[in-house]
Amino acid sequence: MSIQIGIMGYGNLGRGIECAIKQNDDLELKAVFTRRDPETVNILTEGVGVYKTEEAEKFKDEIDVLILCGGSATDLPKQTKEYAKMFNVIDSFDTHAKIPEHFAEVDAAAKEGKKVGIISVGWDPGMFSLNRLYANAILSNGADYTFWGKGVSQGHSDAIRRIDGVKDGKQYTIPVESALEAVRNGENPELTTRQKHTRECFVVAEEGADQARIEEEIKTMPNYFSDYDTTVHFISEEELKREHSGIPHGGFVIRSGKTGWEEEHNHIIEYSLKLDSNPEFTASVLVAYARAAYKLNKEGQSGCKTVFDIAPAYLSSQSGEELRKHML
Amino acid sequence: MSIQIGIMGYGNLGRGIECAIKQNDDLELKAVFTRRDPETVNILTEGVGVYKTEEAEKFKDEIDVLILCGGSATDLPKQTKEYAKMFNVIDSFDTHAKIPEHFAEVDAAAKEGKKVGIISVGWDPGMFSLNRLYANAILSNGADYTFWGKGVSQGHSDAIRRIDGVKDGKQYTIPVESALEAVRNGENPELTTRQKHTRECFVVAEEGADQARIEEEIKTMPNYFSDYDTTVHFISEEELKREHSGIPHGGFVIRSGKTGWEEEHNHIIEYSLKLDSNPEFTASVLVAYARAAYKLNKEGQSGCKTVFDIAPAYLSSQSGEELRKHML
Repeated sequence: MSIQIGIMGYGNLGRGIECAIKQNDDLELKAVFTRRDPETVNILTEGVGVYKTEEAEKFKDEIDVLILCGGSATDLPKQTKEYAKMFNVIDSFDTHAKIPEHFAEVDAAAKEGKKVGIISVGWDPGMFSLNRLYANAILSNGADYTFWGKGVSQGHSDAIRRIDGVKDGKQYTIPVESALEAVRNGENPELTTRQKHTRECFVVAEEGADQARIEEEIKTMPNYFSDYDTTVHFISEEELKREHSGIPHGGFVIRSGKTGWEEEHNHIIEYSLKLDSNPEFTASVLVAYARAAYKLNKEGQSGCKTVFDIAPAYLSSQSGEELRKHML
Repeated sequence: MSIQIGIMGYGNLGRGIECAIKQNDDLELKAVFTRRDPETVNILTEGVGVYKTEEAEKFKDEIDVLILCGGSATDLPKQTKEYAKMFNVIDSFDTHAKIPEHFAEVDAAAKEGKKVGIISVGWDPGMFSLNRLYANAILSNGADYTFWGKGVSQGHSDAIRRIDGVKDGKQYTIPVESALEAVRNGENPELTTRQKHTRECFVVAEEGADQARIEEEIKTMPNYFSDYDTTVHFISEEELKREHSGIPHGGFVIRSGKTGWEEEHNHIIEYSLKLDSNPEFTASVLVAYARAAYKLNKEGQSGCKTVFDIAPAYLSSQSGEELRKHML
């Protein structure tokens, strides 16, 4: 009997979950829930229904894990704690500063419902966090570095599109290669924001718009661009569609640390991701943790957890015996 | 009150454990046990005693975790199960094929003693295994690649030194850069042994020895060298001491996998280590898992575990709340 999964919200992430379920024989898609009119939502999996959000509760006994695919700004702070009373839930809540509050709320709800809720799952927070923790526990005397990219930042792309005279735009965050090299060489550099990443923008201007003014507005935009070396390219709508419609991303988590009685030896631990599709990879992580939530709940556990609290074996469909034999 | 650690065996690994304890405020070295005459063993930590192996049992109530620093061939198969009856234990057992058997024996002993035994800790098995598991759970449709080096292989160095006419020698395992690049590019190559690694040997020949014969014996040695492109350099004893006395190592675990309804997106997960001192890094991993063993046993757990069974948070000296706030 496979683990029955529900998807709440069918955007890029929800669709990624659906694709990931297809690749895992022990998982099965039970239902998709949407705020849109279900009639207008075409999913990929044959024979699976699309329902209004409000109908989720009816599936309380049929869905083993509900994966919440909404946004961190407004959806997840409400949804995760609401559904954790009825379902084992997984979310990708990524507002770092609000994680403690979110954790407390989901913990109370999940304990009330005797369910497991795993929050902030994905790659950052998620796999990057895990690698920071492991590397810090091993090299207690060292320095952490996180670089993002090369990849599309939705927040920065949105910021460009809000500028007057901009029809469309896409922004890439790019790690500075020389900074990465200095870190890998064990130089433990102190890096400013500008020294770590550059930003490259591809902009479609509206006809007759003042491109020099748009470029200036982008480059001087506080928080988003003013602390970075930013390059702006004006291109046609066709070129943007053709060359920049993907959602790649990735990055590097590096810890450089010293061991030895006199700290005479240096070590570099590096974890990196190169992702063709940010939402599909994030979805693949969420699905592995959905399996873990199901198993933990079967064992009688409840409450809120993060990737830090889950033993790796729970993510796999293989037994402990198989894992020890083939993967250790 | 800090966690009291005992070290069983004071070679490179035992000394590495001692250095790692110095870097972790919540850990304290209680005693070192040796098969040698304790009078002849000088440790680095002031005020800590060195005792005969047979005296370990007397420290049953004073040592929280005993870290076993012997070899996998003969020491650990006996020691880990013996001491797991009295202590929480950690070992770095690395004979992959015998892990299931070792696990079963340590599990029975640790359950009998109501202790926790964590086996096969280090970087391979250990951190590399963990990264294989995480990457496989996330990208269920993909291929695994492990490369080792550049680093010193003790087994291969020993094999060289056993050859007639060889006074001393050191062997480096080196990953083939073009193979690494092909994997990183998502080409999913099928790689032969020869295509993945090369071997480089630095040999000190005895006076008058036939270097051509030694080189031939090395290059044609089955299992160790015959399946690899091997380079042999004859150097002086002084040069070997000066240039090749370190024990660096490292390597790469890469998973390349596809997602998407039509498997249209590729992803690369890469974990790599660049280590100045193989034993000191291994020791740093063992010490983090010693902390975990202590905490798990305090919670009432017992039996044998591997890195797959330990939630990451147990490795850290920080609380769950601190970890969520600063590392997630």
